[in-house]
Amino acid sequence: MNTLSPGNAVLMCRTGWFATLWQEMAERLQLKPEFIETDWRRGADVPAIAEALSRDRSHRIKAVCVVHNETSTGCTSRIDEVRAAIDAAGHPALLMVDTISSLASIDYKHDAWQVDVTVAGSQKGLMLPPGLSFNAVSPKALAAAEQAKLPRSYWDWRPMLAANETGFFPYTPATNLLYALDTAVKLLLEEGLENVFSRHDRFAEATRRAVRAWGLEIQCLDPRHYSSSLTAVRMPPGHSADGLRATILGQSNMSLGNGLGPLRDQVFRIGHLGDLGPLSLIGTLGGVEMGLRAAGVPHKPGGVQSAIDFLAGNA
Amino acid sequence: MNTLSPGNAVLMCRTGWFATLWQEMAERLQLKPEFIETDWRRGADVPAIAEALSRDRSHRIKAVCVVHNETSTGCTSRIDEVRAAIDAAGHPALLMVDTISSLASIDYKHDAWQVDVTVAGSQKGLMLPPGLSFNAVSPKALAAAEQAKLPRSYWDWRPMLAANETGFFPYTPATNLLYALDTAVKLLLEEGLENVFSRHDRFAEATRRAVRAWGLEIQCLDPRHYSSSLTAVRMPPGHSADGLRATILGQSNMSLGNGLGPLRDQVFRIGHLGDLGPLSLIGTLGGVEMGLRAAGVPHKPGGVQSAIDFLAGNA
Amino acid sequence: MNTLSPGNAVLMCRTGWFATLWQEMAERLQLKPEFIETDWRRGADVPAIAEALSRDRSHRIKAVCVVHNETSTGCTSRIDEVRAAIDAAGHPALLMVDTISSLASIDYKHDAWQVDVTVAGSQKGLMLPPGLSFNAVSPKALAAAEQAKLPRSYWDWRPMLAANETGFFPYTPATNLLYALDTAVKLLLEEGLENVFSRHDRFAEATRRAVRAWGLEIQCLDPRHYSSSLTAVRMPPGHSADGLRATILGQSNMSLGNGLGPLRDQVFRIGHLGDLGPLSLIGTLGGVEMGLRAAGVPHKPGGVQSAIDFLAGNA
Amino acid sequence: MNTLSPGNAVLMCRTGWFATLWQEMAERLQLKPEFIETDWRRGADVPAIAEALSRDRSHRIKAVCVVHNETSTGCTSRIDEVRAAIDAAGHPALLMVDTISSLASIDYKHDAWQVDVTVAGSQKGLMLPPGLSFNAVSPKALAAAEQAKLPRSYWDWRPMLAANETGFFPYTPATNLLYALDTAVKLLLEEGLENVFSRHDRFAEATRRAVRAWGLEIQCLDPRHYSSSLTAVRMPPGHSADGLRATILGQSNMSLGNGLGPLRDQVFRIGHLGDLGPLSLIGTLGGVEMGLRAAGVPHKPGGVQSAIDFLAGNA
Repeated sequence: MNTLSPGNAVLMCRTGWFATLWQEMAERLQLKPEFIETDWRRGADVPAIAEALSRDRSHRIKAVCVVHNETSTGCTSRIDEVRAAIDAAGHPALLMVDTISSLASIDYKHDAWQVDVTVAGSQKGLMLPPGLSFNAVSPKALAAAEQAKLPRSYWDWRPMLAANETGFFPYTPATNLLYALDTAVKLLLEEGLENVFSRHDRFAEATRRAVRAWGLEIQCLDPRHYSSSLTAVRMPPGHSADGLRATILGQSNMSLGNGLGPLRDQVFRIGHLGDLGPLSLIGTLGGVEMGLRAAGVPHKPGGVQSAIDFLAGNA
Repeated sequence: MNTLSPGNAVLMCRTGWFATLWQEMAERLQLKPEFIETDWRRGADVPAIAEALSRDRSHRIKAVCVVHNETSTGCTSRIDEVRAAIDAAGHPALLMVDTISSLASIDYKHDAWQVDVTVAGSQKGLMLPPGLSFNAVSPKALAAAEQAKLPRSYWDWRPMLAANETGFFPYTPATNLLYALDTAVKLLLEEGLENVFSRHDRFAEATRRAVRAWGLEIQCLDPRHYSSSLTAVRMPPGHSADGLRATILGQSNMSLGNGLGPLRDQVFRIGHLGDLGPLSLIGTLGGVEMGLRAAGVPHKPGGVQSAIDFLAGNA
Repeated sequence: MNTLSPGNAVLMCRTGWFATLWQEMAERLQLKPEFIETDWRRGADVPAIAEALSRDRSHRIKAVCVVHNETSTGCTSRIDEVRAAIDAAGHPALLMVDTISSLASIDYKHDAWQVDVTVAGSQKGLMLPPGLSFNAVSPKALAAAEQAKLPRSYWDWRPMLAANETGFFPYTPATNLLYALDTAVKLLLEEGLENVFSRHDRFAEATRRAVRAWGLEIQCLDPRHYSSSLTAVRMPPGHSADGLRATILGQSNMSLGNGLGPLRDQVFRIGHLGDLGPLSLIGTLGGVEMGLRAAGVPHKPGGVQSAIDFLAGNA
Repeated sequence: MNTLSPGNAVLMCRTGWFATLWQEMAERLQLKPEFIETDWRRGADVPAIAEALSRDRSHRIKAVCVVHNETSTGCTSRIDEVRAAIDAAGHPALLMVDTISSLASIDYKHDAWQVDVTVAGSQKGLMLPPGLSFNAVSPKALAAAEQAKLPRSYWDWRPMLAANETGFFPYTPATNLLYALDTAVKLLLEEGLENVFSRHDRFAEATRRAVRAWGLEIQCLDPRHYSSSLTAVRMPPGHSADGLRATILGQSNMSLGNGLGPLRDQVFRIGHLGDLGPLSLIGTLGGVEMGLRAAGVPHKPGGVQSAIDFLAGNA
């Protein structure tokens, strides 16, 4: 809304369902999204981004938009490499990143990676109820906002930045969540961001070990793109992910994420982010293993035990 | 965002500060607001609206926008009369109404008054924390939305209406506030909307009696436009409203509304809406009377007593 | 329970209903209460206590028991004077004081007044829900506990003191209230005990001014015994206090204290202790004044105004 | 306090630490406890109770006191068999049962088993914070209370029963917990008591299977006395239970129960009662297994997996 004008081309990478929702959004905003397709089993295709930018001699592309952690697939894109590709191409496009399901769970460096617009929300790694969203904005993005022609009012950065200078908001903010945010940030800083990130890495690895022990397949094919926020698991052919999810909900009162778009009924998703300790993770995996058995999904027992073995040696 | 296109003219009535903020919004959205001025001491100028519409033979004006209850002045516009003026002029403009500080406090009839777009929020008469807003939309507005050219995504009614059909939202909603809303609506229906409105009317009249007993002037000059949500009170010349507010905050830990825009430091505002009983109102007025005395503002004592006299006969 | 043996005589002063409940308790515990009667319109009768002690050459009386603030009458006993009377008589009786409705509202000096056993609760000046009670105990009381013969287990100080040494309790304590207590004590210390006490004094005086302005009679006849926690107000002859209370509950959703024992239906009680600011007090008095009018109780209007006049000059 | 007189003999069974605390209590109350010893690895010794009663021709014993579920050992006494033994002996002693850690977790029949005094608390199976306790009392116990000579006031049933008739309490009750109790009872009735009990049985069996898979020893030796509220686990000789507990607290932020009295440092206790689902139980057992490994306690892995295997077939 803030940096672009109707008709602008934006380069996106269809890493999954949430990246696809950006397409819809871009089209509604009268932008021209150009999509690099993937098989939904890895992060953004950096060589393809590099190639698209190097082809774009006229700098028609105004922004490269990437979802940092694709919640529908459990694949995390390498924003550092996207940055390097843009730089190598000498291309002036803005870099915009959706960090909804990664912020405060997976390391992310808005400044070091020279991201121009970072978008985040309160309801994942920040451990709050939904209702707040955040933008981090580079000077380059602020400069672009002065020229951008998309009509905008509520989302406009300028009155927000002006009001924030004196500690105010241009509109009545969701005050209760601001108090909660203050507490969440204190909790994160008390634990230490490095510890928060390594806790998520450890829980993700424990989850993958459980999945492999069950003999199931992880949706993400590239270990460099494994998500530390969640793991999407593929069902054996002929078995319904939504059936399994319903079984687990009834059996253990646990609601797993469903497969979205083309992954519908083919994957289920295990979240392991935010306010989570090792015992909750073990309980979560226990619920999955009990559900696999109850739903008659072919698998080997011992997934939870594999997770425990890993966590015990690394907790 | 949903019914208009860039360059569309909209007719607005500058009843106060919040109506003025609509002007800013309209301009940011590349609309062409045309403003009917007032002295900020009454509601929307219906004859002037009628005249503007009758002059507009070409139907250049696409919408008439009115703030139902102008929070900056304590004046409530007569939406029924605005509706009648539009009908009398035979003008096809949409009627859009901001009910932020009136909904569930002052009677309002979206259907009977054939309003096309009603905008509301959670943080006033609905007695919730801020964080939710609402649109009520007429079929005529929905039809206009099909033709409207303003680029919109988050605010777009269409995906919201589609998702709501099955009880969902296109984006993660502020779930906690939805539970609170459910409770607030139950409370309002238990009391009965007629009782809720007459309670607000009674508290507003008690407040005005206090103000008059103090010998101070009510900002709203037209009794037909008196607000039942809040009362703005003018300071005697040479006395600072913000000074009085600071005195009261220090003395009684009560924060009154300030004068906005041209009314800065000239009025203070007493809110009497939402989850409020007679004793809280009496305490509120007591805090004002103690503050007037402590701040050395010329006034006659007895305002609270006048309110009590009125309430005792009518509570 | 801790310092006495069956058959021991204890000297009590029937200042009102709660002192009378001590009688019942003493009898159930097989003690021999000796009561000094009062007219329920003042605090403990110190000369009568002095006389009873001086007559008791054999030191049959083992304890003098006084309710600091008699909640049923709004009379506060002068514990300092009781102490002086015991000392003047050279009598070895223990001094035991019930501070349920005075602690943290009215100044009280367990050490300076050499009280032997102070009893308190969480639900009044400490601003907590009910569920905790407290004993402050002198060395003399601890010594008496070694000889006392009343069978006791849960109430026994010894295991409590032993466990407390290491931060524990002999039985599972009401943990949630301990967290609340920690917060309540912080609030009191932030305000400063001197300020807390003078706030209560000021609110009590404002209340009495309202009562006098209404032309009603304060139950407490001795200004040296006025309670800063609550004020009991006498109804004009032929008028029902409980009728008034019912009127006010219906009209303003405010529940006043009722008359207890012989004062049944003759007095109503206005609490003004704990987490209370000036505006809540004014609202409270407003509710009483509206109720007096609605119930047809003969009175002069202007009570609330008198309170405001006082508070405005002293807040 | 209510049914006995100083000097009365009471027959108790030292099933563990909490039964021992009853001894202390009885002695403080000037009763004469006679104790049947056990090895702390089973419930009350019914044949020994039968024998003691049959020897007591003079009916010196006034009450038989049993802890239903001994929280220190994880052994549940057979109250039905105790009842039968009293009846078989034709002995008039009252039957008193402590159900603190069994009520609403393990089936208990105050009426059918003709228990005279049942004691319970809010903080275990009722899922509330601590702060409430309960007595269920038989007509026989009420009759005994009329003759009993122990001095009592706060604990006295008579004023409580009188006040309860009209919905009141003789003293200010812990109101917040009464609201919570109302909700807890609703939750229990919604689930159905039979389901609540079988859930606890299932979780206890799953826990025992985990313990056996680890190769550790269950403190309770008699399967008829297995507790469904908690399981106490013996450490291998030479290994410290408190060391393991500290390891688990640090590693997983989970605090297990410690060994009490002679079991100090020899057992740790796994609670599995109250508001607990299968995934929390699996997480709990996972925390134990990780701790066993981290603390270097000799054990076989696979305990959690055994629990999952059992739960999956029975959940």
